[in-house]
Amino acid sequence: MGPAFMPAPDAAVLGERADLMIRTLGAISAEPNRLVRGFLTPEHRAAADLIGQWMRTAQLEVSEDALGTVRGHWPGTGSKRLLIGSHIDTVIEAGMFDGPLGVIVGILAAEHFAKAGRNLPFGLDVLAFGDEEGSRFAKTLSSSLAVAGQFDAERLELTDAIGVTLRQAITTFGRNPDDVAAAAYGRDTAAAYVEVHIEQGPVLEHRSQALGVVTAIAGQTYINVEFLGEAGHAGTVPMLLRRDALAGAAETTLLAEKMARDTQGEVVATVGMLRIPNAAANVVPGNVALIVDIRSGSDEARRKFVDTFKAEIRALADRRHLGVTMTDTRNVATTPCDPALQDGLAEAIRATGGEAIRLVSGAGHDGMAMAKLCPIAMLFVRCRGGISHNPAEYASPLDMGLAVAALIRFIENAKF
Amino acid sequence: MGPAFMPAPDAAVLGERADLMIRTLGAISAEPNRLVRGFLTPEHRAAADLIGQWMRTAQLEVSEDALGTVRGHWPGTGSKRLLIGSHIDTVIEAGMFDGPLGVIVGILAAEHFAKAGRNLPFGLDVLAFGDEEGSRFAKTLSSSLAVAGQFDAERLELTDAIGVTLRQAITTFGRNPDDVAAAAYGRDTAAAYVEVHIEQGPVLEHRSQALGVVTAIAGQTYINVEFLGEAGHAGTVPMLLRRDALAGAAETTLLAEKMARDTQGEVVATVGMLRIPNAAANVVPGNVALIVDIRSGSDEARRKFVDTFKAEIRALADRRHLGVTMTDTRNVATTPCDPALQDGLAEAIRATGGEAIRLVSGAGHDGMAMAKLCPIAMLFVRCRGGISHNPAEYASPLDMGLAVAALIRFIENAKF
Repeated sequence: MGPAFMPAPDAAVLGERADLMIRTLGAISAEPNRLVRGFLTPEHRAAADLIGQWMRTAQLEVSEDALGTVRGHWPGTGSKRLLIGSHIDTVIEAGMFDGPLGVIVGILAAEHFAKAGRNLPFGLDVLAFGDEEGSRFAKTLSSSLAVAGQFDAERLELTDAIGVTLRQAITTFGRNPDDVAAAAYGRDTAAAYVEVHIEQGPVLEHRSQALGVVTAIAGQTYINVEFLGEAGHAGTVPMLLRRDALAGAAETTLLAEKMARDTQGEVVATVGMLRIPNAAANVVPGNVALIVDIRSGSDEARRKFVDTFKAEIRALADRRHLGVTMTDTRNVATTPCDPALQDGLAEAIRATGGEAIRLVSGAGHDGMAMAKLCPIAMLFVRCRGGISHNPAEYASPLDMGLAVAALIRFIENAKF
Repeated sequence: MGPAFMPAPDAAVLGERADLMIRTLGAISAEPNRLVRGFLTPEHRAAADLIGQWMRTAQLEVSEDALGTVRGHWPGTGSKRLLIGSHIDTVIEAGMFDGPLGVIVGILAAEHFAKAGRNLPFGLDVLAFGDEEGSRFAKTLSSSLAVAGQFDAERLELTDAIGVTLRQAITTFGRNPDDVAAAAYGRDTAAAYVEVHIEQGPVLEHRSQALGVVTAIAGQTYINVEFLGEAGHAGTVPMLLRRDALAGAAETTLLAEKMARDTQGEVVATVGMLRIPNAAANVVPGNVALIVDIRSGSDEARRKFVDTFKAEIRALADRRHLGVTMTDTRNVATTPCDPALQDGLAEAIRATGGEAIRLVSGAGHDGMAMAKLCPIAMLFVRCRGGISHNPAEYASPLDMGLAVAALIRFIENAKF
């Protein structure tokens, strides 16, 4: 089939449609006054049904796999497929954009081709995953790992807070846990995966850009640091005889900040958790525990940072006569985005009038699982104040429309 | 009366006696497995009775005032009295030495004169107060304030954790709340007050000295500091766009430490309490509250420290684009010890073979109340590791014996 008549995408109109869809989906919640939509819950069921209905309206072929991932397919002339996805589960007290935006943008982009009856050399599959936030079971990304052929059957025995196993939850959702393997794409079929997502950070807003190209999903290390000093009376122990565990933790906090600043954007480091057991205003802290979250788009930069950081912590603990233990409780490798796909997205952003800023995703995404199947890329959409996981989360209709237009442009120029 | 036959005090023997008394008193507790002896409780009653019995054995005249303060009197030839006191109430899960040591040393010193039938130009009153730790009612030092004539009658209406008023507690203890005024000494009678206490800090141990002379009971300021920044995703907010409240708190902690160190012993400053509301390892802290405890033997040094400290905090908050509030929740003036009494104690320490180190008491004591009545002085006794308010609290028998010997020497040379 040759190209059919294709009206140029109108970002303003597409944005208004996306906004309406976001708000409709955002009303599906377990609670009346805040958005809560967990994996394989009745709310997930209702959201998946709505997504399926929108896909059908967009003239896509709809199916649903064992994990409840909804798929809307528009056939290509060849057997390869471009996968476009994101998730429709949410955190507790969520915003409406984190996840749903990528699914909705995908549907509107696929609809652009389907409504015109235009079959590309590759098929389009829009995927609505259900387990990106990991707020129900101890492990996350079940949906996308199944699609990527990386689902470990042991996961079926995970239990939620009230003891329901993933296996039981799948059955209750109306699917068959024995069909998990069939959710996987063949490596020959999956040409690439593209995910549109709100940035969840302030960079695009700060740079006055609607869209940005993700270079990598950051790798992450959690270091649990515990300082052991000596508790003492705040009035009676002279400064020079103190072994103040909090002072060690304070130095560590400022060291993390300084070292990360010195990388000029390559690494971010955060102390978000710091606890003084048995704290009292008039007691020199004898014991302080903190967690340092270190992320980078470069595994080498992160490893180098962690090594230097730990050596500096040991040195400051020695200087302060403090005991210190450091335990890595998380080590996740960086997921790089495919350079050619990045360039395709960059060209599409420029075509919509933007600057095509490149930035690292500090947050995790389904793309991390999909990267085990095929090359991936991500398009970020500006969100107000960089706020996410919060009811105040917001992306403007026009920015969402520009994302649809850019994705359409990317698809038009893609070669698989 | 002239001096009777007076055997030289034997510190080793006195120490063994003090140790036995400490252990006997330390067994009187509300709980079988830890020491808990609150103000006006049955345990306080039992302890007061035991103290009264020891005082009688020491040939002192025993009485008890409305607050349950036990007094053991050895008459002088004149009407003035030297008051020697400390407390017999404890914190929860206390050591055996904090408080009782001073009462027991006082009894043994008075006994030295009483057993020899030696009347000095002034009388000796050993006082066993019951409300120094303040662990029952919201206000503390009721016993010594009553003795100092500073007891405010409104205190009688204070309630403990289960709603018992101080007034009721006094009645249950077997005393009459209407007699509080009679507990006060006349200013003509009270020549001076001396208190022996464990140091509760590591200075004497560090300097290998059994005893030390207190120059002042430190004044104290509590500043509640709260930083308000902006919470953000630990992966997505670039370092340079952060307003990290914990980083501000960490700087404040290290600033307090550095400024206090720079005073070379004049001021101590401690951050013992630091809290991140809604803390999560992957969230840049938007809000952190901490309490800074600042103490000094000099009110001027403390005020100057507090002013400079606050200005520096404002400056660092500005630099970090953080909001900051600072509230003084406590401001207690320094209680200076009388120079002549200090010199008397110093001479007595040297007479027992010690060095007469002078040091500030960072902790509060009954002496703070007694200073409103008459000149005060304090003798500190080395305690192992500087540990107090803990079952591991320990002073050696010999050090306690040296304290008795020094107090006897001080009394012998005192002129009132």
